[in-house]
Amino acid sequence: MERVYNFSPGPAALPTEVLNKAKEELLNWQDQGMSVMEVSHRGKPFVEYAAKSEVTLRELLSIPENYKVLFLQGGASLQFAAVPLNLTNASQKADYVVTGNWGKKAAKEAERFLSVNLAVDGIDGNYFGIPDSATWNLSDDASYIHLVINETVVGVEFHQIPDMSKAPLVADMSSTLLSRPINVNRFGVIYAGAQKNIGPAGLTVVIVRDDLLDKARSETPTVTNYRAMSDSDSMSNTPPTFNWYLAGLVFDWVKKEGGVLEMAQRNKRKAEKLYEAIDESDFYSNPIDPKCRSWMNVPFTLPDSKMDSLFLEESSNAGLANLKGHRLVGGMRASIYNAMPEAGVDALVNFMNEFQKRYG
Amino acid sequence: MERVYNFSPGPAALPTEVLNKAKEELLNWQDQGMSVMEVSHRGKPFVEYAAKSEVTLRELLSIPENYKVLFLQGGASLQFAAVPLNLTNASQKADYVVTGNWGKKAAKEAERFLSVNLAVDGIDGNYFGIPDSATWNLSDDASYIHLVINETVVGVEFHQIPDMSKAPLVADMSSTLLSRPINVNRFGVIYAGAQKNIGPAGLTVVIVRDDLLDKARSETPTVTNYRAMSDSDSMSNTPPTFNWYLAGLVFDWVKKEGGVLEMAQRNKRKAEKLYEAIDESDFYSNPIDPKCRSWMNVPFTLPDSKMDSLFLEESSNAGLANLKGHRLVGGMRASIYNAMPEAGVDALVNFMNEFQKRYG
Repeated sequence: MERVYNFSPGPAALPTEVLNKAKEELLNWQDQGMSVMEVSHRGKPFVEYAAKSEVTLRELLSIPENYKVLFLQGGASLQFAAVPLNLTNASQKADYVVTGNWGKKAAKEAERFLSVNLAVDGIDGNYFGIPDSATWNLSDDASYIHLVINETVVGVEFHQIPDMSKAPLVADMSSTLLSRPINVNRFGVIYAGAQKNIGPAGLTVVIVRDDLLDKARSETPTVTNYRAMSDSDSMSNTPPTFNWYLAGLVFDWVKKEGGVLEMAQRNKRKAEKLYEAIDESDFYSNPIDPKCRSWMNVPFTLPDSKMDSLFLEESSNAGLANLKGHRLVGGMRASIYNAMPEAGVDALVNFMNEFQKRYG
Repeated sequence: MERVYNFSPGPAALPTEVLNKAKEELLNWQDQGMSVMEVSHRGKPFVEYAAKSEVTLRELLSIPENYKVLFLQGGASLQFAAVPLNLTNASQKADYVVTGNWGKKAAKEAERFLSVNLAVDGIDGNYFGIPDSATWNLSDDASYIHLVINETVVGVEFHQIPDMSKAPLVADMSSTLLSRPINVNRFGVIYAGAQKNIGPAGLTVVIVRDDLLDKARSETPTVTNYRAMSDSDSMSNTPPTFNWYLAGLVFDWVKKEGGVLEMAQRNKRKAEKLYEAIDESDFYSNPIDPKCRSWMNVPFTLPDSKMDSLFLEESSNAGLANLKGHRLVGGMRASIYNAMPEAGVDALVNFMNEFQKRYG
């Protein structure tokens, strides 16, 4: 079967070029007579590859020297626990800015480890927008402020980060990292599961400012301890070598394509096209405040949810895969990360128009 | 370059047949027009594949119905912390049977979470053997007894598990699982990092008896909580889908080759050949008590460590890769997991004989 346009929210589409390279060298990496899956993480070839991948990521995101970059396991969900374990003791407090389902999950997990102040919870507005930051109830004594830059379920994204100078910002950027430039200096910790814009599931990138490396509780598992992983170049234990390798190929691809500024331009264009098609139709709709609509995840509904299965069947037959919305919100969702070409969005918009003509 | 014989201790060699299948379908899995890395873990194809992989593993290891099988991230090293978090509270105690470097690391990590009793520590004998179990100082009130079935650094393996009926046995089987039959019923928890006999690094298999699922502390991160991961079929968060997929291919391969009994016969034969070559020579030596020599990792030294680099260079040129011993013990180490064919061991023995003839 031909490659389809895959709108999966994650694990998500990867650049075809990257997959072709991985395929080509799958049994013989760097002419070693073995797969990259079979080489020692402590051997020179992998150590050098890993170091180079970090250099490229630092270059892409302009990561300052006083930040460490870690390549870990466990996904963003393990970071929901690792953040309070690394940054606080149990008697401390953190502010959680909740603008969607992932922020809520992060806050709930953090409650196991410290006192959580919900500075804002957009659930009152069904997470259809981001409440004005002037209304947020930030604490004077929070150890950090946690936020999720892009919420994948409803499709809400911070296009600008409000000024919150009270405590270090900790950001889940699972669906943001590499999709646009970010100002790393504004954050204490940035973390991201790989399976959106970075690589296959099973790798987590953590970027941590070096003054935050030494605050971990003794009950922090070593492989989630920022200091221990930093001191060992993320190899306190065996890292997920294949996942890391694939991420390295993606970093090279992003660089070759023009970097994160180019990605941002493409992603903005793709998202605008799709929102425009939705807004101009009287058939499709998206309820999110236009000021904070996500560039990465575009949910939309049909006039009647009874048409959903027909839409899914016909779009799938047209080579547009995985458009089903999250079970919490229903309808459709097009996830259009870096690896989704503009042609894929064009094909979707065409399909949507024709579907409306047939059934609207 | 042709495929070489790869004696890496882990990440280790994978069956060539498995890698070829992964290569063939890397961009188009199950005729879906996308890679297995790109499919949703919640979609039917992956959910069914994951379930089937568990069925095969259960069949291979005769896992009883009252045990859950989990597919997690973080490696055995994260289990060093997850075990005490899941099974005890901070005021409790556990016995650690230390027969090598990994047991020592497990005990050290556990000390963050509970009171550790070193029931035995073979370091007095340089871990060259397993002290008689009659001499072990097991507690009457331990919550569990922890042991590492095969120690990869020095090459020491339990070929029989002594009777220790006092508390549930918890075993690190990272380098044992799938290499031979095991009696799961004797254990409360079995865990294994994948990168020896199971699949690529980044996946951890945990087998846990169901009466041990509900003892976790509230400070257990959700993605390491046995109950939460069991209730979600290991999908509380996004699992490492590619790593799991590859492990599934390995399970199928083991089954097709005749199962773990056949693996055990091959592994025993391979190990005996190699130890015999070492013992019969007056050039190579291995210090481990023959009763507990590992079938998986065979360390050996040359008469003079100054010859090590020559041995490594020439063996590598002969297509025998990654024979360097662990930095803690020096010399050579041949790791001969399931994926190492007997022909690889024969080639190594021939090389060793010729090397001795030239330089002995």
